Amino acid sequence: MRDFCMDFSAVVSCFLILVPILTVPTSGAKSRHFRWEVEYMHRSPDGLEGVVIGINGQFPGPTMRARAGDTIHVELTNKLPTEGVVIHWHGIRQLGTPWADGTASISQCAINPGEKFLYRFKVDKAGTYFYHGHYGMQRSAGLYGSLIVDVREGDKEPFEYDGEFNVLLSDWWHKGSHEQELDLSSNPFRWIGEPQTLLINGRGQYNCSLAAELSHSQMSQCKFRGNEPYAPRLLRVQPRKTYRLRIASSTALASLNFAIGNHKLRVVEADGNYVHPFTVDNIDIYSGESYSVLFTADQEPSNNYWISVSVRGREPKTPPGLTILNYQPTPASKLPISPPPVAPAWNDFKYSLALSKRVFALKGTAKPPARPDRRILLLNTQNFVDGYTKWAINNVSLVLPATPYLGSIRYGLTKAFDQTPPPDDFGREYEIMKPAGNPNSTYGNGVYTLSFNTTVDVILQNANALKANVSEIHPWHLHGHDFWVLGYGEGKFTGKDQEKFNLVNPPLKNTAVIFPYGWTALRFVADNPGAWAFHCHIEPHLHMGMGVVFAEGIPRIKKIPREALGCGLTGKLSLKNGGT
Amino acid sequence: MRDFCMDFSAVVSCFLILVPILTVPTSGAKSRHFRWEVEYMHRSPDGLEGVVIGINGQFPGPTMRARAGDTIHVELTNKLPTEGVVIHWHGIRQLGTPWADGTASISQCAINPGEKFLYRFKVDKAGTYFYHGHYGMQRSAGLYGSLIVDVREGDKEPFEYDGEFNVLLSDWWHKGSHEQELDLSSNPFRWIGEPQTLLINGRGQYNCSLAAELSHSQMSQCKFRGNEPYAPRLLRVQPRKTYRLRIASSTALASLNFAIGNHKLRVVEADGNYVHPFTVDNIDIYSGESYSVLFTADQEPSNNYWISVSVRGREPKTPPGLTILNYQPTPASKLPISPPPVAPAWNDFKYSLALSKRVFALKGTAKPPARPDRRILLLNTQNFVDGYTKWAINNVSLVLPATPYLGSIRYGLTKAFDQTPPPDDFGREYEIMKPAGNPNSTYGNGVYTLSFNTTVDVILQNANALKANVSEIHPWHLHGHDFWVLGYGEGKFTGKDQEKFNLVNPPLKNTAVIFPYGWTALRFVADNPGAWAFHCHIEPHLHMGMGVVFAEGIPRIKKIPREALGCGLTGKLSLKNGGT
Repeated sequence: MRDFCMDFSAVVSCFLILVPILTVPTSGAKSRHFRWEVEYMHRSPDGLEGVVIGINGQFPGPTMRARAGDTIHVELTNKLPTEGVVIHWHGIRQLGTPWADGTASISQCAINPGEKFLYRFKVDKAGTYFYHGHYGMQRSAGLYGSLIVDVREGDKEPFEYDGEFNVLLSDWWHKGSHEQELDLSSNPFRWIGEPQTLLINGRGQYNCSLAAELSHSQMSQCKFRGNEPYAPRLLRVQPRKTYRLRIASSTALASLNFAIGNHKLRVVEADGNYVHPFTVDNIDIYSGESYSVLFTADQEPSNNYWISVSVRGREPKTPPGLTILNYQPTPASKLPISPPPVAPAWNDFKYSLALSKRVFALKGTAKPPARPDRRILLLNTQNFVDGYTKWAINNVSLVLPATPYLGSIRYGLTKAFDQTPPPDDFGREYEIMKPAGNPNSTYGNGVYTLSFNTTVDVILQNANALKANVSEIHPWHLHGHDFWVLGYGEGKFTGKDQEKFNLVNPPLKNTAVIFPYGWTALRFVADNPGAWAFHCHIEPHLHMGMGVVFAEGIPRIKKIPREALGCGLTGKLSLKNGGT
Repeated sequence: MRDFCMDFSAVVSCFLILVPILTVPTSGAKSRHFRWEVEYMHRSPDGLEGVVIGINGQFPGPTMRARAGDTIHVELTNKLPTEGVVIHWHGIRQLGTPWADGTASISQCAINPGEKFLYRFKVDKAGTYFYHGHYGMQRSAGLYGSLIVDVREGDKEPFEYDGEFNVLLSDWWHKGSHEQELDLSSNPFRWIGEPQTLLINGRGQYNCSLAAELSHSQMSQCKFRGNEPYAPRLLRVQPRKTYRLRIASSTALASLNFAIGNHKLRVVEADGNYVHPFTVDNIDIYSGESYSVLFTADQEPSNNYWISVSVRGREPKTPPGLTILNYQPTPASKLPISPPPVAPAWNDFKYSLALSKRVFALKGTAKPPARPDRRILLLNTQNFVDGYTKWAINNVSLVLPATPYLGSIRYGLTKAFDQTPPPDDFGREYEIMKPAGNPNSTYGNGVYTLSFNTTVDVILQNANALKANVSEIHPWHLHGHDFWVLGYGEGKFTGKDQEKFNLVNPPLKNTAVIFPYGWTALRFVADNPGAWAFHCHIEPHLHMGMGVVFAEGIPRIKKIPREALGCGLTGKLSLKNGGT
């Protein structure tokens, strides 16, 4: 049996196979308790051994599942030897619990080694979410997992399906995250390069390909016993049934395209919000985004089909991530009859833009206020600061402080960071199509104070990077809110562009992309007291300063759990007011 | 000139050359201020690039120099991205400043990333010391440097010399310290193995040998331009002059033997205490020890001579560390005429023991109290705890708590650690010559509470490790005190052995070794209020639990700077007593 299992095409039945979830929880809103230990582990996500951050011995971390209205309690113990840790619950708005947002230096102090922290928050809205580290580059180190919120008991999704699968996407480097961090912070600058492997649910293949025989690749055909931590998890389906794929991207860098050979995908949810359903052959998914897509197993059931994930937006140096859609009762061992689907050209940005423009809110979704109270234009540029290569927003490269903003602002610790606000705009003469005349920038704290309950428009303006003819994709993610995506455009945003904003059915999202040399317009209501990160979700870019912070209604927050503020000036403040 | 410099034998004059320090400071006791930033850096200590922890861009960290009676102020900023940091001032007793001892979880909370901590302490006693990280395995990562204390103004050393050199020894692995930490904490256990390279003042050679031509080695002869970070620093001397070498070992693992070809060494100081001078051909130095040795440049001045550092006590898989003693005006480029001195056989423990037994206090050194008030026997064993490979003391494997002992004991936070004291002795029937019948041990907090101002004898008892016929060297280091080394013995310590204790002129030291299957007897007075680590100075052994803590006179401590106690229950305690 063991020998039999050595040959991939013969042994797919040996694999761990994902069986769709068909059960429906039956109880009402409740508290759900988790005890998690975060620690480093040896693991081979793609066949080469490396070091990952795991939770309770699992990589990716355990899938968390709850119902809308439930309260999640995660008692997290930091078992990293010398490093702090936090976990961000990506897409959860943390209404009333801004200290549980899990962003180090912004919403809380990093949890010290050996200490526990209780994340307690409500998941108020059904949808596909995920969680991940938000300190240094711990997300790159593998600290992530799925967070799925079902509708409230008795509620129905506005679409039907027979089963569902989680598909959590990520990218993986052979160089460890600590060294990547150092490389990015060095002068001369060392770029981390493209990922070695794309992972589907934490599994990829580096030294072989699942599709080598079909693709006439120079790679060898993968052979597995099935118990390898890099053996793919297959998705097993019944013919004619309809399935929901909950796809989320926790990549550090890669923008991805997802496809199932021979199957159409019907997009029904984006970032935890229902969208007007539309059908595609494949879908782009940027880091920080999540989508639910439906597909029906309506193809020839005696075959199996590829599930393929490819790099987009950057010249791909990473082979596609693959797994197999296995029709029952076809043997899992039967390879698809043709090579995996080919993604659109990596630099076909028009294709990407057209896809993004197809996303509209489902009818009945809340509409944006008719006009903003404030408009903030954020120019994204690559710069030098003191000779170090950085990203900056309106010429300010974000450096996070030792005292979390939530605490320093709440308690008036004005020495915790420079109180000069960053600019709401950039010099309108800035030539976005060229490298900057003066590429030098400065460090800053990037805190925009928003008047409570006002409506804010953010125009993200892309530009040329340091090198001529280079402008990159940046997926921007907002904590604590969903925003409406009012429009995308090419070139420099002008006042005239706002006349074309979609105020009728703009999608609600928490992550939106800016395309090379383009702009993206967002609107949100600053109605959630807290300090909220808004940043490029490419982790090395954030590490290089590509983010800002929105502070809103913080004086309204009555009490911040002291456990969240044991560091920096908040730690000292409390000590001064009493203690020993 | 560049080509000329490519050949090692031709270019020694291109090297950074250590010139002896001849100046004598002239002012009285004073405050000396340092501002240090601790951060990761790329560096090639042995020719292969790795990652080190540096201070102000230097590796090893800057040499700190002061006079006895001075007060040192180090404002340390932690610039590691996600890790805490502390610095221990090895050999400095921290009289009256136990919170400045720099041992995470014992004397203070680790300093958070982005935060500053002020180490302020008096260097009360002249001598050769060093400093190093004491959190996780940050010492292995290269966080160390020299700390030299000169005699008070007007005072004289009890020996004369014309110049001096610092020689800080360490060992280096190509695997990063984070991964080493994980390996050691894994089940199945992964041992870190022997170091790849021995470093002298942070410099060694991995892919070549300085002495290849002379040793008929398979290695190639090193060729340097001279500006490489792994080019050796030569020691330049004038014929007939006498020099003081201040040798300290910050190795993570290796026990070393130090020799200068053709030159005798006169030992005059050990661990910051004067010893009765004695002359040797070479000297063993264990991790945590420091020695001053005098030598006179009395050899043929038209030659140069090897300085050689070799592994002892473990089967050497690491080539000797080398540099050159360069007689003036002989060209530095002239290689010594014979191969480097050969160290005694690695397992000639009798040689080592005999050397250790030659160390006596200089006349006039304080004598130990005649008898102890308490005797603690500490059995050193290698064990399993829950399947993990550990070291234990009296069957307790040390696990450090989230709240520093100094704080939790001072403020009566009994929940911060298990209050059950560890045993003062081990089962006297324990067979030290064999692997334990039951190798299983338990985790514990290892805190021995010592009555203030009492005299304590500690008998360190070595034993067989997990594998038959293996017993290892362990150099034990005590914080906050010097101890008298009353004797060494082979086999199991018995009451009779104490009759042979040297109470006449035992050396004062802070680090003492136990030899395989042997015991070592120490005496000290518990007169320094604080919580003091006492541990094997082999960093992976400490990481695996090989240490205890002595708590003494803590209720006498009036006030602990709050900055030292911002973590764990002390952080929360203070917050509860007030704050916001």
